[in-house]
Amino acid sequence: MNGQNNLVDMPLSEFRKYGHEMIEWIADYLEKIEELPVLPNIKPGEIKSKLPQSAPLQSEEFSKMLNDVDKIILPGVTHWQHPNFMAYFSATASGPGILGELLSAAFNTNGMLWKTNPSSAELEETVLNWFRDIIGLPQNFRGIIYDTASVSSMHAIAAARENINLEIREKGMSGAPKLRLYCSEQAHSSIDKSAITLGIGMEGIRKILVDSKYRMIPHELEKAIREDRANGWTPFCVVATIGTTSTTSVDPVEKIVEICERENIWLHVDAAYAGVTAMLPEMKVFFKEIERADSIVANPHKWLFVPIDLSILFTRRPQILKQAFSLVPEYLKTAEDSVVENYMDYGIQLGRRFRSLKLWFVLRYFGVEGLQARLREHIRLALLFAKWIDEDSSFERLAPVPFSTVCFRAKPTGCNDENKLNGLNEKLMNVINSSGKLFITHTKLNNIFTLRLVVSSIRQEERHVEQAWKLIKESLEKLLSENNIEN
Amino acid sequence: MNGQNNLVDMPLSEFRKYGHEMIEWIADYLEKIEELPVLPNIKPGEIKSKLPQSAPLQSEEFSKMLNDVDKIILPGVTHWQHPNFMAYFSATASGPGILGELLSAAFNTNGMLWKTNPSSAELEETVLNWFRDIIGLPQNFRGIIYDTASVSSMHAIAAARENINLEIREKGMSGAPKLRLYCSEQAHSSIDKSAITLGIGMEGIRKILVDSKYRMIPHELEKAIREDRANGWTPFCVVATIGTTSTTSVDPVEKIVEICERENIWLHVDAAYAGVTAMLPEMKVFFKEIERADSIVANPHKWLFVPIDLSILFTRRPQILKQAFSLVPEYLKTAEDSVVENYMDYGIQLGRRFRSLKLWFVLRYFGVEGLQARLREHIRLALLFAKWIDEDSSFERLAPVPFSTVCFRAKPTGCNDENKLNGLNEKLMNVINSSGKLFITHTKLNNIFTLRLVVSSIRQEERHVEQAWKLIKESLEKLLSENNIEN
Repeated sequence: MNGQNNLVDMPLSEFRKYGHEMIEWIADYLEKIEELPVLPNIKPGEIKSKLPQSAPLQSEEFSKMLNDVDKIILPGVTHWQHPNFMAYFSATASGPGILGELLSAAFNTNGMLWKTNPSSAELEETVLNWFRDIIGLPQNFRGIIYDTASVSSMHAIAAARENINLEIREKGMSGAPKLRLYCSEQAHSSIDKSAITLGIGMEGIRKILVDSKYRMIPHELEKAIREDRANGWTPFCVVATIGTTSTTSVDPVEKIVEICERENIWLHVDAAYAGVTAMLPEMKVFFKEIERADSIVANPHKWLFVPIDLSILFTRRPQILKQAFSLVPEYLKTAEDSVVENYMDYGIQLGRRFRSLKLWFVLRYFGVEGLQARLREHIRLALLFAKWIDEDSSFERLAPVPFSTVCFRAKPTGCNDENKLNGLNEKLMNVINSSGKLFITHTKLNNIFTLRLVVSSIRQEERHVEQAWKLIKESLEKLLSENNIEN
Repeated sequence: MNGQNNLVDMPLSEFRKYGHEMIEWIADYLEKIEELPVLPNIKPGEIKSKLPQSAPLQSEEFSKMLNDVDKIILPGVTHWQHPNFMAYFSATASGPGILGELLSAAFNTNGMLWKTNPSSAELEETVLNWFRDIIGLPQNFRGIIYDTASVSSMHAIAAARENINLEIREKGMSGAPKLRLYCSEQAHSSIDKSAITLGIGMEGIRKILVDSKYRMIPHELEKAIREDRANGWTPFCVVATIGTTSTTSVDPVEKIVEICERENIWLHVDAAYAGVTAMLPEMKVFFKEIERADSIVANPHKWLFVPIDLSILFTRRPQILKQAFSLVPEYLKTAEDSVVENYMDYGIQLGRRFRSLKLWFVLRYFGVEGLQARLREHIRLALLFAKWIDEDSSFERLAPVPFSTVCFRAKPTGCNDENKLNGLNEKLMNVINSSGKLFITHTKLNNIFTLRLVVSSIRQEERHVEQAWKLIKESLEKLLSENNIEN
């Protein structure tokens, strides 16, 4: 019996039945996830070829879908929830986070206005204030949830644009001065995409040199601003990063902010990955003077066990953001507009899911101390792995480890040819990843093919990092012995 | 026993327990939703005042959260899932859609690259091809899932900008010609927000006059383009709407597209609400020549029972979009890049949830015919309501009803003062909404305060529309009799 025979929803008896099955399926999946290959062993097109080419005309039983999830979907999933996923910035969804997302889908509200879900508006405000306090931002900061850090940063840069030139909203960029944004060479690609989107253009970004630890050099920033002003550019925004994507390096915000204040330039801090560590007293050293920044992005969906997507933009100048984006057509006016915050006023997206629920559940279920303990453990494990690298003469560490990401490469004794080393490390990564036992990714640092291993999954324990290290070492040995045979 | 005592996730035994409780909670919620007031009876700040001012340091039992959902959250929720929610464009999440979202949260993948979840990439492609075929777009259209129509349209307009001037990506808008975008006076506010974001500015939008049925007048568009070219503007994009927000009017795409082709202007069609009805043969009349548009947005999360958020942008020129946004840093390069599609190449958002699952579940569970039957039923009910309005001398219909939205007002016999009528209708809406029995919203049409009633919820049956009509009539009678007493 299914929903085809009437014109409403799936009968609730059926929802209960399959809902319980789905909960069991998910628990089983998470329970046995270590038996699955972390990266699927499939070729492009393989999943597609197993799916019908057109939608069914008639209703299908829900059990068929669950069956196809097992047979077709599961073999092609890259398991982000797998403790051996140590690639990119690994991001995991905790149990309470998943249940929060479920509840949010069931309410299915669009919190564009206070009136369209007061609980969403007020829970978002409350939980973001909690989070602001936890990471040590002062009370003049206000948070807004967006989907991704890309979108959070784009809004911050749009606010910076509004801040420098109030006429852009009305007149557009066409007659405006040439705006210049500064970030380090190591800044995330989303900053470039923001510049493209906002009409600033790639040439409107000036990438500042980094030091040997991949941190923006403040003196170079100063010089660039001076040069640009002399050449008719209008500097309007600096994006500093706390935890860059390649190496998790930390730009010296405390020096950059002085330049920004002196020059009247908006400072946006991209702490999408590392921002959550500001809740650890011992990590405050990386967040010096952060309260003088104009805006900061941190992503609980990256390293705080909240399901993707939930990114927070904090700004102490929300009015500027509102000035840039608020626009209230008649059909969205409500009687409460003068006394409430309508979140739609702070961005391009009118549709807003009830995302604060999942963050609320995660913060309460683990508690601040529980979250701190987990972050500390990840950092401890990453430093342990870094120590193993440092102590092994066949490996080399390629960047400091301020958080939980280790950049390294294999460098067997006597092998000094950079091209060969790059080839060896790429091969090593591919061998490891195709084993299905571990997923790590790479970056390039000064043209060096660099392996990255990240510890930030809620399912990662010391044994996983140990196994990873063992696999990496064994794979290298195997590669080297094969090469010897070939030569 | 909870997750505080170790450093990993909620124990799976606990996840099962609370997962099952949550499923039961949701089923009970949906079962009894008609007993709840559709709009909460609370004041701004009331929810906030019941929540603690800071996050708990220690872990809390999950049962406490469920308890607080009942006690604190539920009383402040506007129930979008309620069959008496007939406001805005009401949007409901079906059972299979909710379960799809749950599964997506459990996988918690970021499908930025094919490699980071091949099943996500290939299911998205497959299901969007299904959907493309269902709504009758030709095979040269390609779909991309974004979160909201606001973001879909922004990407379409960005592609239009790229199409007209290839240097904007590199050089920005500062030295570029003044770009002009055209849409009707009735177009959605997200088009204005896109223009602000993209640096086109509010002045870069020219709003074209509409006819008496709120449809863009093609001749006025032609005239505007001609005038603008003569005055140094560069026309680059027209946004036509099939189903405008206020009245669901339909711009004459078949005429507009001729102008766009002749003038070499990108045509984007905003069919966020009404696009799903293209699956009904009898509605094809509203989608004439749609295949000649450059891009079209349709939102399964609006009127196809998929949980918010899931918006689809179809374009027959995906390469232009890719050209505008593709940017691949080293750390995101994969061995498969040359043979697969990486969805991150098509937009600003790097983070991409596994959204296609919920659309897949909904399409299969209801089947195309099941979905068609539901859309037809909603349209039938809206026309029924429109008929009641037409037949009642105390009411007046204010716009045609092509889809499932009825614009009307109370206009008691003998009352012809427009100011008084506006006041009366605003009061009528407020009385109705504060009853908790129905939620409708308003717009203004030629300065007339206009009530809107929308039938698009999967839980709406004829009895709900009947009750709504009864409540509206009774509320008007009551208001009029009170006014008589007062006077």
